[in-house]
Amino acid sequence: MKESFKARLYVALIHHPVVNKNGEIITSAVTNIDLHDIARAGRTYGVSGYYVVTPLSDQQALSRKLISHWTSGYGATYNADRKEALSLIRICSTLESALDEIREETGISPKQVVTGAKAREKSLSFEAFRRMLSGEDGPAAYLLLFGTAWGLAESVKDSADFALAPVKGPGEYNHLSVRSAASIILDRLAGDRQP
Amino acid sequence: MKESFKARLYVALIHHPVVNKNGEIITSAVTNIDLHDIARAGRTYGVSGYYVVTPLSDQQALSRKLISHWTSGYGATYNADRKEALSLIRICSTLESALDEIREETGISPKQVVTGAKAREKSLSFEAFRRMLSGEDGPAAYLLLFGTAWGLAESVKDSADFALAPVKGPGEYNHLSVRSAASIILDRLAGDRQP
Repeated sequence: MKESFKARLYVALIHHPVVNKNGEIITSAVTNIDLHDIARAGRTYGVSGYYVVTPLSDQQALSRKLISHWTSGYGATYNADRKEALSLIRICSTLESALDEIREETGISPKQVVTGAKAREKSLSFEAFRRMLSGEDGPAAYLLLFGTAWGLAESVKDSADFALAPVKGPGEYNHLSVRSAASIILDRLAGDRQP
Repeated sequence: MKESFKARLYVALIHHPVVNKNGEIITSAVTNIDLHDIARAGRTYGVSGYYVVTPLSDQQALSRKLISHWTSGYGATYNADRKEALSLIRICSTLESALDEIREETGISPKQVVTGAKAREKSLSFEAFRRMLSGEDGPAAYLLLFGTAWGLAESVKDSADFALAPVKGPGEYNHLSVRSAASIILDRLAGDRQP
């Protein structure tokens, strides 16, 4: 696969620890459409790997089954483009194991960049992150974290290296699906700027 | 609702006429997640209405049922943000009836802007469309058309006023879901440009 980022960018979709509507820590269910949509956006924007993080072994097994339909089953011949996208997916139990795998693969300790709908102190702008991804400062690896349900747990946000600025439209409403948010963020970071 | 575009922007998701993998004209099924994700993005980026276009009466009835759960059923109290987004949706049978409704609502004949993954001759750039939406040239209304399945039928593309440039990443692969494409396009047209 062509390397599109000079620095490597990985994406993780976190199913635990995330919060529910009341701010309680939960484990959300993996949904088929999150696998497809974010893999397709990831492939379009040149990410190096898409981690689906869930501690539940039945959810891991279900995810592997869904993916294998498209990567080695009937779907692989029916739709080769989809195969190419879903091949990016890596199922793992914890955020730590994803970070370990990236460290092993790249020889670099990856920086964690969290996303969320609310602004945090000292947030990283899209322009600054885009420059960081151009690799001007030498080899680097970043893991961009997305939360399911009502978003990433505070503990994940607190231990990250950077918090990316929230995506905003012209008004105050910004209740995007995680699929939309991931797609928009990847476009802002790696989209073609030619008209 | 605050008017976020000086010119009015409407979105339509077309289920007929669209093409299948073999380029044949089909009618696709309405999917729940297309309603939610594109409504949420539409609300975030200030669109004036989101038309779900299908000639099938059972699909129209199903769509209305799904929407009413969130706009007047249990979902409306459970998640008021979702209600606000799904209130944008208008079900109709044909593209023509959507255009008629916009004409009646705005007093302006709307221009049709088609989207698609393949470049067409004389495509409209994102920058040019963003300027048009600023309303510099006076009152205007635009209907941005998205195709389900393998995309809009050629007849729809041929009769449109403009074809928007395709969304691209750094490489050639651009097989985004219609949900991702709609979200990215709205962000390119109306996203906050502050860092």
